[in-house]
Amino acid sequence: MRSLGGAVNNALIETMPKFTPLIESLPITIPFVGPEALARRSGQPIKARMGANENVFGPSPKVIAAVQAHAPNAWQYGDPELFDLKQALAKHLGIAPENIAISEGIDGLHGLAVRMFVEQGTKVVNSLGAYPTFSAHVKSFGGDLITIPYADDREDLPALLKLAKAEKPKILNLVNPDNPMGTWWPASDVQKLMDETPEETLVMLDEAYSEFAPEGTVPPLDVTRRNVLRFRTFSKAYGLAGMRVGYAIGHQDVIAGFEKVRNHFGVTRLSQIAALAALQDQDWMQYVVREVSKARIRITEIARANGLKPLPSATNFVTIDCGRDGIYAKSIVEGLLQHGIFIRMPGVAPQNRCIRISCGKEKDLDLLAEVLPKVLQGLG
Amino acid sequence: MRSLGGAVNNALIETMPKFTPLIESLPITIPFVGPEALARRSGQPIKARMGANENVFGPSPKVIAAVQAHAPNAWQYGDPELFDLKQALAKHLGIAPENIAISEGIDGLHGLAVRMFVEQGTKVVNSLGAYPTFSAHVKSFGGDLITIPYADDREDLPALLKLAKAEKPKILNLVNPDNPMGTWWPASDVQKLMDETPEETLVMLDEAYSEFAPEGTVPPLDVTRRNVLRFRTFSKAYGLAGMRVGYAIGHQDVIAGFEKVRNHFGVTRLSQIAALAALQDQDWMQYVVREVSKARIRITEIARANGLKPLPSATNFVTIDCGRDGIYAKSIVEGLLQHGIFIRMPGVAPQNRCIRISCGKEKDLDLLAEVLPKVLQGLG
Repeated sequence: MRSLGGAVNNALIETMPKFTPLIESLPITIPFVGPEALARRSGQPIKARMGANENVFGPSPKVIAAVQAHAPNAWQYGDPELFDLKQALAKHLGIAPENIAISEGIDGLHGLAVRMFVEQGTKVVNSLGAYPTFSAHVKSFGGDLITIPYADDREDLPALLKLAKAEKPKILNLVNPDNPMGTWWPASDVQKLMDETPEETLVMLDEAYSEFAPEGTVPPLDVTRRNVLRFRTFSKAYGLAGMRVGYAIGHQDVIAGFEKVRNHFGVTRLSQIAALAALQDQDWMQYVVREVSKARIRITEIARANGLKPLPSATNFVTIDCGRDGIYAKSIVEGLLQHGIFIRMPGVAPQNRCIRISCGKEKDLDLLAEVLPKVLQGLG
Repeated sequence: MRSLGGAVNNALIETMPKFTPLIESLPITIPFVGPEALARRSGQPIKARMGANENVFGPSPKVIAAVQAHAPNAWQYGDPELFDLKQALAKHLGIAPENIAISEGIDGLHGLAVRMFVEQGTKVVNSLGAYPTFSAHVKSFGGDLITIPYADDREDLPALLKLAKAEKPKILNLVNPDNPMGTWWPASDVQKLMDETPEETLVMLDEAYSEFAPEGTVPPLDVTRRNVLRFRTFSKAYGLAGMRVGYAIGHQDVIAGFEKVRNHFGVTRLSQIAALAALQDQDWMQYVVREVSKARIRITEIARANGLKPLPSATNFVTIDCGRDGIYAKSIVEGLLQHGIFIRMPGVAPQNRCIRISCGKEKDLDLLAEVLPKVLQGLG
């Protein structure tokens, strides 16, 4: 039996309101498969969570206490001006609140910044195989992505600068220290890039991992520059990846643009409280940096003991050259997953000959030391 | 003394990378001034927080306990697939997970949906003076907003439908029950609107307040329709405004579009846990609905006792006709603020003759009952 309602619905299936041509053209994007999904699909619970460059040492106990104390207030919208956090950040960084935009992680800020500057055909320069979410944002606004391969497993600063001078793109993106390779450039080279990039090109400098980097990696802040935006986060050294709080630093005229497009109530109340408490406990952050440093050494040792070649790292992960191709590296990632160890790897050749292991706790690294030889032996 | 660095910076001030023409044309948007900002500017702490249609009765104690228990895990990114929450919502609603998109509140979802369908010059129909954030999204993507005034303080369904038929806009937006007026249409009228809107027009039906509405307000879900997207939230009846979790319900081909543009890791880990626990405690939600109902009656009585005319409400607030113009209503809002009572008001005439008071706890309403006569007397 066919109801009239059914007939109407069948007719409706023939048509639908059309996405914009740009959206229609986009693929469905899955930037990263989460460890929860990997556990569901493999039927194997994750025992060591070392794939997403999270901070296993966690947020400060003071942060946890603050979140717990404020949980009953979750019915209140967060302050859309993020006043307390912005004031504290400004003081911490020695700049004015007008030079800071806060939003839902660097991912969220990247999306907003790209939206502010990129439309159909806008040129954007990035490294080939760099953090993929940025490139996804550029494509999703119709930008024309021009990429430069890595050189010696680092983003190729001289080539990026040369291309910027030749093409005068709207944006030049740089991640320093780099993800997924863990490599870095000293401050003087980054400074030179910022100084010599054409004025009409915005240098977007992602410093998510800067707290882990050695002295002399981070150039001084200069918020008088209109063509530099720097991005930092509470996700890494402060241990708050799950809370989604990142911030952009720049000239107030550029920062003001975020006010036109941001989701004003987007940063949760508890996230604001957590980030503020995290910023106020620098001792904990320094403790984390020391623990990360120890874990990096341990991962390096485990890699070497297994005949693999760890890259130097200025981040909370170590990228390891496995000496063959991407298929081999992928087999190692999958082999470790079968033992409950979650790691990831770079997505583009030749960097995809590597695996990337985030710093774990001692028990995580003990498991890695135990399992890695078996996996490698199994692969032959 | 002028350093070379200073000279370079002065030169840079002359130019900057250009925003897109669309972004350049947008005003800096402040959709709502938060109570925290009002308290900072007035120097008057907020004693009764009844302006943002938050749920003062708060989230379930089970939600608070879940958030507190999981606070130490804030270092882990939230599941980008939001698997557990989506499964639970699907079961609760009797639809498939493929018919649900979850993101950072309805504000966030509106932004994504508008981005999916609206580009320069795209026609969008909305009510004049309706919830302003939606219209801000439309303008921020260059949409051509066509508005219809309220009729008898309700969104004018017949006029909206007539305009949709004549203009065949890409989107027709409806909020039912309505914010800021609290009024509503029965399900049969909304169903008629959905049935008769041209197939090429997407009906965006915002049902943020639906849990508070009387039986017979919410049309049944029909996810076979490709031109209807419905929006719901954990911000209101579930008491989680500060956690930013909303969801869209629709045909899977439309829902799939969100995967192309959403911030995959945007919903915090604790927000996902909070929303799941909230959904699982329907008894608490029903308790809140009863408390809200009592508070609505009390606000109605206070308004009448002061010679004002409360409108009927199917929401967690009561909009009150103050009988004069927007300047008078604004004076009442400001007068109450001087006594620590935070309320808001509609932004557009003739609805701006009203004030809007969110349901408070007994102590909040006692304060309102005490202060309102003084404020009105002061205004004469």
